[in-house]
Amino acid sequence: MSEPRLEPLKRVLKNDGLEAVALVPGPNFRRLFGRDFHLMERPLIVIVPASGDPVAIVPHLELASFSELGFPGKVFSWQDETGYANAFAAAAEALPNLKSSNRFGLEAQRMRVFEQMALATAFPDARFVDAHAGISSIRLRKTPDEIELLKEAIRISEAALEATLKTVRTGQSETEINGQLIRQLFDHGADGLAFDPIVAAGRNAAEPHAVSRDDYRIKSGDALLIDFGGSWRGFSADITRTFFVSQVLDDHRALYETVLAANQRGRETARAGITASDVDDAVQTVLEDSNFAKYAVHKTGHGLGLDIHEAPQIMRGNQQILEAGMVFTIEPGLYKTNECGVRIEDNVAVTDSGIECLTSFPRDLRIIG
Amino acid sequence: MSEPRLEPLKRVLKNDGLEAVALVPGPNFRRLFGRDFHLMERPLIVIVPASGDPVAIVPHLELASFSELGFPGKVFSWQDETGYANAFAAAAEALPNLKSSNRFGLEAQRMRVFEQMALATAFPDARFVDAHAGISSIRLRKTPDEIELLKEAIRISEAALEATLKTVRTGQSETEINGQLIRQLFDHGADGLAFDPIVAAGRNAAEPHAVSRDDYRIKSGDALLIDFGGSWRGFSADITRTFFVSQVLDDHRALYETVLAANQRGRETARAGITASDVDDAVQTVLEDSNFAKYAVHKTGHGLGLDIHEAPQIMRGNQQILEAGMVFTIEPGLYKTNECGVRIEDNVAVTDSGIECLTSFPRDLRIIG
Repeated sequence: MSEPRLEPLKRVLKNDGLEAVALVPGPNFRRLFGRDFHLMERPLIVIVPASGDPVAIVPHLELASFSELGFPGKVFSWQDETGYANAFAAAAEALPNLKSSNRFGLEAQRMRVFEQMALATAFPDARFVDAHAGISSIRLRKTPDEIELLKEAIRISEAALEATLKTVRTGQSETEINGQLIRQLFDHGADGLAFDPIVAAGRNAAEPHAVSRDDYRIKSGDALLIDFGGSWRGFSADITRTFFVSQVLDDHRALYETVLAANQRGRETARAGITASDVDDAVQTVLEDSNFAKYAVHKTGHGLGLDIHEAPQIMRGNQQILEAGMVFTIEPGLYKTNECGVRIEDNVAVTDSGIECLTSFPRDLRIIG
Repeated sequence: MSEPRLEPLKRVLKNDGLEAVALVPGPNFRRLFGRDFHLMERPLIVIVPASGDPVAIVPHLELASFSELGFPGKVFSWQDETGYANAFAAAAEALPNLKSSNRFGLEAQRMRVFEQMALATAFPDARFVDAHAGISSIRLRKTPDEIELLKEAIRISEAALEATLKTVRTGQSETEINGQLIRQLFDHGADGLAFDPIVAAGRNAAEPHAVSRDDYRIKSGDALLIDFGGSWRGFSADITRTFFVSQVLDDHRALYETVLAANQRGRETARAGITASDVDDAVQTVLEDSNFAKYAVHKTGHGLGLDIHEAPQIMRGNQQILEAGMVFTIEPGLYKTNECGVRIEDNVAVTDSGIECLTSFPRDLRIIG
């Protein structure tokens, strides 16, 4: 097997003792093959065995696009009218050694159950294992080129945020501000959204994954939490800043300063050679030693790249050692239910000598509107 | 069990002989509980047994949001630091009859493999089945209120398309036009995107799921295919129109007129009482009887609602009988690889007396730029 693009995956197969892995469209697929497909009701799956050529199962209507990949193995296509079972069966015939594979690895956080069921029918005696972490490890250390793409996504996103803030006024709804933010992202050159932005004010800011409301008007004293990112050529920013509308209560200022101190501690702590757990521990300790300990509900952050939530998880217990090229978020938050929430999220890249903070949007408490 | 929101699902359980179903965030969840959550690396799962109260497994950081649902059963939460296995185990203890369930239904096109693996660990002797179609049948017939939301998404989308076309010029890239389209969608009031729009010109239009290019400039004679939709309160338009830049070759005009005839045949054929297969058959027959038969690669359409691709699939072999309230796309296309592609996609709702075509953007061949 001399296909150089598959070499990183072949190393994972060997290191993790896997006999094969199956990939679906998504970040790992894109990293290996240079482009992506929609993950939809029509299964498109690539199976890479530890030895021998890979095979692909491809919906007929994607064949023209797929053929441009220069895929180095057999392709079994299927049509809507007749369904995909025969293509899975033919793929299994081409990989007879895998029918009773004892370690057939899946991207378990990405692949859907119906795809796994189709594999299980075609490979009836195979034992499937969650190989998501191993497969995704091919993306764990970003290349300098990848970090440049991420920086561009961040540059676009920060400019869009600043332009949006200039238009925020008391009385606007969260969805109005959200729409303005999205327009600004595309005006500033984003080619996509990392995710549906979170624009949450007042008590809604106290929900870590709030949904923007169109029936609430932001008012003086509200926290306004904005968690968003534009994307650029597959890489996405993931930035949160929290502002206050017109004024800030003393208690909310103290909440803010505590989160900011935790964020700063994270940026000061992170470096190559320590564990992801160490970083979370440093950040959580700031929150736990404050008067607001009970309002902390989530880990410090997550890896960021072609996927929005990927390894390394910056979480107590994760003994992953940080290495140069890893990119992740530092996003402590405090959430006083029904009243106020604050989160401050930066994106950092581990370097040989510490970290480079890729985000530079100011963090000092800011009154807007 | 007197929870009225779960009644539609309870009927599915009974009719399909299921002992339980597990739901993850997504359209079915939203339909039942009135709001949605992000589908992410933290499992959030609701299990509804055929008899007795439901249970939920909820990440700690979503608890505040989840509590607003008024969920009528036990909630087992879990924290990032300790993981979700204990919450799954506790849920299984609360549902002892299901540990060896013979028919435990899953949303197999939505749930990821790692969630199913966690269920399989907690319910070690259960047999899981794909219940996606049955569960999603609760959304098959749209209410008048839902169709009004969809109409608003379509109104926004069509206005955004017209505004975008006014700005298209020879020499622009597909991504430029894409960015303009997205800005116009939000300018016109969309609260989200149905999906990343497809803006594909020239040979890229011949790829049914093309990705917009930033390094190709549209030029005279190109087809310009735009497949997109804005969303409004959860409902999404899904519209395609194909234009020609400055001029059109005779052969491409004939291709266009063939697709248009197929689209029209679909809109004339669809009505309550016939099958989804009948509609696809009528549409495909127009394509197959033309000089371009070999360029047809996909079915006529798919259902449209809280999900973008849902039942009923408008596809030969699908014996689903159309009923009033069903909403789907009619989107025949022809794809002459490396040269030109045309797709014309409308959204229709089945009524008691035929269909209502919800989209009204003109379909006559239009030269732009």
